[in-house]
Amino acid sequence: MEKLNFASDYTQGAHPAIMKMLVETNLEFTPGYGTDAYCESAKEKIRLACGAPDAEVYFLSGGTQTNMTVLDAILAKYEGVIAAETGHVSVHEAGAIEFTGHKVLTLPHTLGKLDAATVENYVKGFYADGNFDHMVFPGAVYISQPTEFGTIYSLRELEALSDVCKQYGMRLYADGARLAYALGCPENDVTLPDLARLCDVFYIGGTKCGALLGEAVVIPKKGSVPHFFTIIKQHGALLAKGRVMGIQFDALFTDNLYLTLGAPAVEKAERIKKALTEKGYTLYFDAPTNQIYVLLTDEQYASLGEKLIMSFWEKPDENHTAVRLATSWATTDGDVEKLLTVM
Amino acid sequence: MEKLNFASDYTQGAHPAIMKMLVETNLEFTPGYGTDAYCESAKEKIRLACGAPDAEVYFLSGGTQTNMTVLDAILAKYEGVIAAETGHVSVHEAGAIEFTGHKVLTLPHTLGKLDAATVENYVKGFYADGNFDHMVFPGAVYISQPTEFGTIYSLRELEALSDVCKQYGMRLYADGARLAYALGCPENDVTLPDLARLCDVFYIGGTKCGALLGEAVVIPKKGSVPHFFTIIKQHGALLAKGRVMGIQFDALFTDNLYLTLGAPAVEKAERIKKALTEKGYTLYFDAPTNQIYVLLTDEQYASLGEKLIMSFWEKPDENHTAVRLATSWATTDGDVEKLLTVM
Amino acid sequence: MEKLNFASDYTQGAHPAIMKMLVETNLEFTPGYGTDAYCESAKEKIRLACGAPDAEVYFLSGGTQTNMTVLDAILAKYEGVIAAETGHVSVHEAGAIEFTGHKVLTLPHTLGKLDAATVENYVKGFYADGNFDHMVFPGAVYISQPTEFGTIYSLRELEALSDVCKQYGMRLYADGARLAYALGCPENDVTLPDLARLCDVFYIGGTKCGALLGEAVVIPKKGSVPHFFTIIKQHGALLAKGRVMGIQFDALFTDNLYLTLGAPAVEKAERIKKALTEKGYTLYFDAPTNQIYVLLTDEQYASLGEKLIMSFWEKPDENHTAVRLATSWATTDGDVEKLLTVM
Amino acid sequence: MEKLNFASDYTQGAHPAIMKMLVETNLEFTPGYGTDAYCESAKEKIRLACGAPDAEVYFLSGGTQTNMTVLDAILAKYEGVIAAETGHVSVHEAGAIEFTGHKVLTLPHTLGKLDAATVENYVKGFYADGNFDHMVFPGAVYISQPTEFGTIYSLRELEALSDVCKQYGMRLYADGARLAYALGCPENDVTLPDLARLCDVFYIGGTKCGALLGEAVVIPKKGSVPHFFTIIKQHGALLAKGRVMGIQFDALFTDNLYLTLGAPAVEKAERIKKALTEKGYTLYFDAPTNQIYVLLTDEQYASLGEKLIMSFWEKPDENHTAVRLATSWATTDGDVEKLLTVM
Repeated sequence: MEKLNFASDYTQGAHPAIMKMLVETNLEFTPGYGTDAYCESAKEKIRLACGAPDAEVYFLSGGTQTNMTVLDAILAKYEGVIAAETGHVSVHEAGAIEFTGHKVLTLPHTLGKLDAATVENYVKGFYADGNFDHMVFPGAVYISQPTEFGTIYSLRELEALSDVCKQYGMRLYADGARLAYALGCPENDVTLPDLARLCDVFYIGGTKCGALLGEAVVIPKKGSVPHFFTIIKQHGALLAKGRVMGIQFDALFTDNLYLTLGAPAVEKAERIKKALTEKGYTLYFDAPTNQIYVLLTDEQYASLGEKLIMSFWEKPDENHTAVRLATSWATTDGDVEKLLTVM
Repeated sequence: MEKLNFASDYTQGAHPAIMKMLVETNLEFTPGYGTDAYCESAKEKIRLACGAPDAEVYFLSGGTQTNMTVLDAILAKYEGVIAAETGHVSVHEAGAIEFTGHKVLTLPHTLGKLDAATVENYVKGFYADGNFDHMVFPGAVYISQPTEFGTIYSLRELEALSDVCKQYGMRLYADGARLAYALGCPENDVTLPDLARLCDVFYIGGTKCGALLGEAVVIPKKGSVPHFFTIIKQHGALLAKGRVMGIQFDALFTDNLYLTLGAPAVEKAERIKKALTEKGYTLYFDAPTNQIYVLLTDEQYASLGEKLIMSFWEKPDENHTAVRLATSWATTDGDVEKLLTVM
Repeated sequence: MEKLNFASDYTQGAHPAIMKMLVETNLEFTPGYGTDAYCESAKEKIRLACGAPDAEVYFLSGGTQTNMTVLDAILAKYEGVIAAETGHVSVHEAGAIEFTGHKVLTLPHTLGKLDAATVENYVKGFYADGNFDHMVFPGAVYISQPTEFGTIYSLRELEALSDVCKQYGMRLYADGARLAYALGCPENDVTLPDLARLCDVFYIGGTKCGALLGEAVVIPKKGSVPHFFTIIKQHGALLAKGRVMGIQFDALFTDNLYLTLGAPAVEKAERIKKALTEKGYTLYFDAPTNQIYVLLTDEQYASLGEKLIMSFWEKPDENHTAVRLATSWATTDGDVEKLLTVM
Repeated sequence: MEKLNFASDYTQGAHPAIMKMLVETNLEFTPGYGTDAYCESAKEKIRLACGAPDAEVYFLSGGTQTNMTVLDAILAKYEGVIAAETGHVSVHEAGAIEFTGHKVLTLPHTLGKLDAATVENYVKGFYADGNFDHMVFPGAVYISQPTEFGTIYSLRELEALSDVCKQYGMRLYADGARLAYALGCPENDVTLPDLARLCDVFYIGGTKCGALLGEAVVIPKKGSVPHFFTIIKQHGALLAKGRVMGIQFDALFTDNLYLTLGAPAVEKAERIKKALTEKGYTLYFDAPTNQIYVLLTDEQYASLGEKLIMSFWEKPDENHTAVRLATSWATTDGDVEKLLTVM
């Protein structure tokens, strides 16, 4: 029997609405490199959803590629990017940011989140150091919404970060790889228009939110990243058949699909957390979106592993293992039931 | 009425066999980053087709990305890559190779092809120069098969290039963005096993040969490019849902699809060239694959442009324009008929 | 007996005025990194000599380092630099420009010089190409004064280049590795104030013009290259004992030394050219500064090589060798006499 | 009256033996780029002093430049360098390492030193992580001897680090910017031959140890860093008048000058520490080489600042300032007396 798979939110294909549109448009002729009508339509729908009628929108293939291309584009050569020490750019991108010549300046985090005061303190200290011009200038702040810990920034927290950035001439960039699950989270109060208002650049994740691939980069203020198209090409990030992403985002932004597909996944995660707690499991920490962190004994980990695919998170001590489970837009009630039978 | 579109071979979606398989497998669970069973199956079929049972195979998203990632991986830091001055890496990649720190050393071409003697002469001259260690070492030779001019290397020519590379310690890398159209060309005598035998690395193009996206990098000699997986990640070129490319290449290498889908496109191109010549058109130059180069008067160019989408190639003089038409795996007899009605 | 050495203008130490000042100040205490009073004094003298009271001046160690640091600082990430195909940055810097991520866009030359019309034609063609945003943008023009061929730009030619640059939003950068020999050349009409008026950045060469090491980068318009100090550090180009260069340039710009030390070298080169012509030698081409290009038979080359160190220039045919001789600020009348005895 | 200056060990010129030799050889003719007889002589003397007859030796201009060039040369593209979080490459090089595309992987330190167990623990954890191939490989370990805290590695500690490096396929690189002061320290038991035996590359610092500029890179195992000469050039680190450094290192390695000039500086630092302690000052921490770390009240800091130039170290709390004083090869007994009068 096949194992249950709660390892991540990128383990299945695309939302049926996307597959339908890809199939229906398959033999149509379009120009390349994102200049087709589907890309244009998707961009316009995204502008509308973001309340940013002048925004530039670009489609890239994956998260690391997007982070590397955007950060290289918005950082001056002598600048680095501030990130939580647990940020995706800090740890899990094989040095892609450094590959483009920029240092990742890591700061302590709280469940994956950067605090505005922590950032301000660092930057203040930087400029107070008499030798700061021998060091890497903090040019941008990288956050992820939700974070790698499944937590989310509140509007107040985001505004505070934005204020610090403005005060010290830094750009604010939000990685929205799993943004649909923040938008579908009951306690979330940060909307797409908020992101467009507070960030210099952010991306709306497709790969983990219902697409086969694709991330939509939003630059709210038109012209603020000159020649980003060419920078995309230079970073190897320009797809010839741009329509593949245009069509997918057009489907995702039709009938509010992107804004609504996260909620059921988050609801299922809540249901799972509640049930697991009742069964006596310990949550490693609580996260309000689609990721569930459970502390297991090593025996539990081994025996569960025979029926369930989880993500290893870390080993807090010699006898325990923390794991991550994730729901997604595609998780069914049946999947949840099976999980709760197995666990 | 919609215009006819012969602008390129990436203007339509994917081969129906691919779309079918993408749809059928859509809700299956697979692990990420190319570690799924579809990728493995596709790799195995490619190894078989290449007669290279130990080859490493990786799937990347696009041509520029592949060229940049492979070349950066196979060049030492003090090395550059030799390419025809018309090579894609020389002109149309927005400096992606230089972005990775390597110089493109351009040499003269003959209809897009590099001659072994030209390469040897350059490299000999390089090492004869007393100051060569103040210059960029030629570390690899980049060719495209077919070239940007639709021409192809013969087996003899490829062997000669391979010999020069071996003699001077250079790697040979072939960009196969349109490889299916070389393989489907009657006068072609270079097979996939030949490429695997003669090149250090090459790629089998998907995007222009029936896939939505994807290029299959083949490293015939296992282990010869250490940690290429991590280098792919570092260059932002690793897709989370690697299956999207695995499934496509699995379909393309089922029932010899990749080996056979080029021939009809080439046959149609031949038919078009013949008909155009009979109608009195002048071929700008003759190319044996799926690209057709026609010399038009500027008046012809303008009036044809109202019904037909072509690619501008160059302006050889003040009154003429050279254009490129391309057939593809998706071109129908009906498309050809309409073209010949219009022209 | 030691061979005569006319191989280059960097084969001897420093001008006696420099050595004297280095020795006299040796045990004085100064702060580091170019913040000392000698650097400040030298900068002020250079500003005065350039008629550019607000210019920023920085001291770097060598030519390739300076070219790489300045060009990386003034180019946007998607830009390359236009240079003559014989430019130092194009050929003899081991790919240092590409190492910083930028392409060198080479154009044809006339005895090492770039023509404004050639540049304009290229840039016009670039922006006329419908696909220009898939290519490297021309962001700056690199010239050397004098060129690698010992030739010099006239004021009119420099103004024409500056005009083209302004028209197309490119920066103009002049490599003055041997600038003293242009300034000391009777036919030269380009002054330091002209360079400061027409270039966005240029450097006043020390290494080949009387210093042990050091090149003075002049940025006429203050603030136009933000945080250049940090970029210098980032490129490994910041000397701890910056005074070593400050003292040297202070000496070079005291009593017009820099403006006057080139003329005797050029006068000696003229004398040598005249004498060699009278002796029946053929100049390979004529250059008005301190470099002398002579066409020798291979027999002459071999036999002269026993007594004289020359620079190999190129082999124009199977029986001849072209060589370069160079005079310098240190060449004595005795050296010239010996040379004319030997040749 | 001029202030006393104990700010650093690079505030004065060069050792008189160096100045003498620079002056005496000034008008001699030599070839460029480090190919002259003085460089060769200096290299041979360094090989002898290191007990490494086959070592390759190169002269670069400064510390950051050397670190950036060496690390880029010895790291594979997918590798980063492990360093103490206080390492010079981690903090004070304006991102020069990242500029070359490599991440600095920082680990906790003890007074500037990396512990072999800390390194081993990190690397073990790295390879134990199932996702390590999505992360930056640890390819080298950077240490400084003495460290930025004036502390030194013992032979046993260095051997332990070397063992960990060998075990995990990492290179060991030692930054010897102040190496003479380690060699001149009574408690030091690490000799030049030890460094040559245990490190893959290290450099013998000149700038802070008696030279005007220059660092001697030693590659004990010939051929282990292919084409390092070209890499130096590519990084803008090749001086045309290489003799300037060759002559200085020739002087430094004549009559054991380099091995003996550190001891008097260290002895003076010891004398100062003893006297300051007796006067009631608190050492911020104790370091055995030429750097002295003193904890001052902010009032003391302000009033001393009127007569003495110190280096600000850090502010441990709101009322205190920690400062660094440094002696050097040039510090006289008179300087020490004046210091002890002032403090």
